[in-house]
Amino acid sequence: ARDINLAVVAGDGIGTEVVEQGLLVLDAALAGSGTTVSTTDFDFGARRWHATGETLTDTDLDAIRTHDAILLGAIGDPSVPSGVLERGLLLKLRFALDHYVNLRPSKLFAGVTGPLANPGEIDFVVVREGTEGPYVGNGGAIRVGTPHEVANEVSVNTAFGVERVVRDAFARAAARPRKKLTLVHKHNVLVHAGHLWRRTVEAVNAEFPDVTVDYLHVDAATIFLVTNPSRFDVIVTDNLFGDILTDLAAAITGGIGLAASANINPDRTAPSMFEPVHGSAPDIAGQGKADPTATILSVALLLDHLGHVDAAARVEAAVAADLAERGGRVRSTAEVGKDLAARVAG
Amino acid sequence: ARDINLAVVAGDGIGTEVVEQGLLVLDAALAGSGTTVSTTDFDFGARRWHATGETLTDTDLDAIRTHDAILLGAIGDPSVPSGVLERGLLLKLRFALDHYVNLRPSKLFAGVTGPLANPGEIDFVVVREGTEGPYVGNGGAIRVGTPHEVANEVSVNTAFGVERVVRDAFARAAARPRKKLTLVHKHNVLVHAGHLWRRTVEAVNAEFPDVTVDYLHVDAATIFLVTNPSRFDVIVTDNLFGDILTDLAAAITGGIGLAASANINPDRTAPSMFEPVHGSAPDIAGQGKADPTATILSVALLLDHLGHVDAAARVEAAVAADLAERGGRVRSTAEVGKDLAARVAG
Ligand SMILES: CC(C)[C@H](C(=O)O)[C@@H](O)C(=O)O
Ligand SMILES: CC(C)[C@H](C(=O)O)[C@@H](O)C(=O)O
Repeated sequence: ARDINLAVVAGDGIGTEVVEQGLLVLDAALAGSGTTVSTTDFDFGARRWHATGETLTDTDLDAIRTHDAILLGAIGDPSVPSGVLERGLLLKLRFALDHYVNLRPSKLFAGVTGPLANPGEIDFVVVREGTEGPYVGNGGAIRVGTPHEVANEVSVNTAFGVERVVRDAFARAAARPRKKLTLVHKHNVLVHAGHLWRRTVEAVNAEFPDVTVDYLHVDAATIFLVTNPSRFDVIVTDNLFGDILTDLAAAITGGIGLAASANINPDRTAPSMFEPVHGSAPDIAGQGKADPTATILSVALLLDHLGHVDAAARVEAAVAADLAERGGRVRSTAEVGKDLAARVAG
Repeated sequence: ARDINLAVVAGDGIGTEVVEQGLLVLDAALAGSGTTVSTTDFDFGARRWHATGETLTDTDLDAIRTHDAILLGAIGDPSVPSGVLERGLLLKLRFALDHYVNLRPSKLFAGVTGPLANPGEIDFVVVREGTEGPYVGNGGAIRVGTPHEVANEVSVNTAFGVERVVRDAFARAAARPRKKLTLVHKHNVLVHAGHLWRRTVEAVNAEFPDVTVDYLHVDAATIFLVTNPSRFDVIVTDNLFGDILTDLAAAITGGIGLAASANINPDRTAPSMFEPVHGSAPDIAGQGKADPTATILSVALLLDHLGHVDAAARVEAAVAADLAERGGRVRSTAEVGKDLAARVAG
């Protein structure tokens, strides 16, 4: 029997609650397949930081690297200064493990009511670059706290980094029925980075001649996301624009309670990481109120990434069926997990 | 009789058409007030660039500076390489004339149907910083066109620049019934710039103790703009986040055909500039199809800035009344202008 060696980072707030249900559904999806799951828990997050001052050590990273994949719940707590866990842990994982494809599918499932009056069909994926852009931590400040303070942030974009994520996005577009790729940037203002992205998309298009390409400035893209989201099939964009667009995309498809994401290392030189788009929601933590659906859809992405394509499809189908019947019914985190696991088991 | 000495930059595409109607309404609003308007046309834009290679010369800037205000239509044409007119003309005007407050009101007028199923009341203003951030043009690239290209963009934020726009935003919030200011940034990732913004908002709050302050990450702000836009009163944010949020804000309030903006130099060391948020729309240019309402609302902002507060209110009231009755009626650019001018004249 094969085994999935899974690193589990439950994290803070509702992280623990949603991850528990994610693991339940993962087991259900693999039941009878001959593949088993063994997990290692990692205690990263606010508690560990408060206790030790550590976010993610080299030893932690070495230990993580021996796993096939990572399931992450949520990171962050108001008691920790802003940026400490985000940059010292979450982004550090994405960067150190070279998660250059941050994949975020957006689908309006039947039965889900979003904020748009006439949403139409919504089914696109955002391929957000995960290791460059303004997320590199290449900023600094002088004369901090004085009237002469200057604080800079640098967006770093490389041909190497842009090309590999653009190629991945093209491959995903080519595998979808509509075969359409939209580059989102702001090349009329961020001309250097923007032109690199633009030239790269043009160049890689030659390898995928059947993919149709268009371009939107990031500001215009937010308009289309609320006026005509059906126009999108695959979006490729940088780390910051991708962060913004995927929260908006989650909102129009029923909220971040349903939005899954995968931080993928397509070269498989390190484990990929699967996490809901939502945060740790300290306001509802520990109350069994969190919706584990986003985590469970992230488990589907995990299964797909590890080659368990059928199991992944069954998890997504279970979620779709559950959402179609969900209505206004209120269930606890554990009840949703149990119901979804039962559907997956068939 | 006083005189408004107005610089008119009609620009490209539909710019000419909408500006013509803006001027018509401006005259109507001031009729009988003793104030007259004299205009100087500036030929900046795609045509001039094609003919001369010039975007905005020092002589142009000197000439512009002698005016009380600038009315701008739209800049940009697909025949001009991306960035040339944006950075060489539009942003150059904003920067050279120190338009550090880019003011963009968002109001869902009665009679207007936006994309949201339950929009609620929408009435907020975005105070977008206009002279710093990633818009400074402080980027560059090496090894362009090779596999080793690196393209950087630098966001520059200064205590001086952040404080003055934050103070302006607080003053605007203090003058509104709800007295609420939301800072939008991404300080968990862009820690240096983000913390400068955050500390500045905290510090300036002491001068405006009756203003309530909250904070949203830019990604979360896009969610609230579609799920609960009523929560916003005044938003203050940087140049790039402001660009993105104001297009989304325009979309939820009926589209960029209705979205006005003011590029304000509050110190009045140079003329302020008023322009619709929309672009030159080359696809419909010259057909009399463009909606001049955004330009006319920008004229209201212009009147207000120049102290013609009653005239400004009459223009906004005329637009509100027209929108309430507009329905699906199709009118030409000139007809909308004529109808609004008639309403303003009373
Ligand atoms: C928590 C934060 C650093 C993170 C990001 O900006 O990437 C989050 O918003 C996300 O989208 O996963
Ligand atoms: C044309 C472009 C440079 C401009 C901007 O990004 O500021 C526009 O989008 C706007 O919002 O006025």
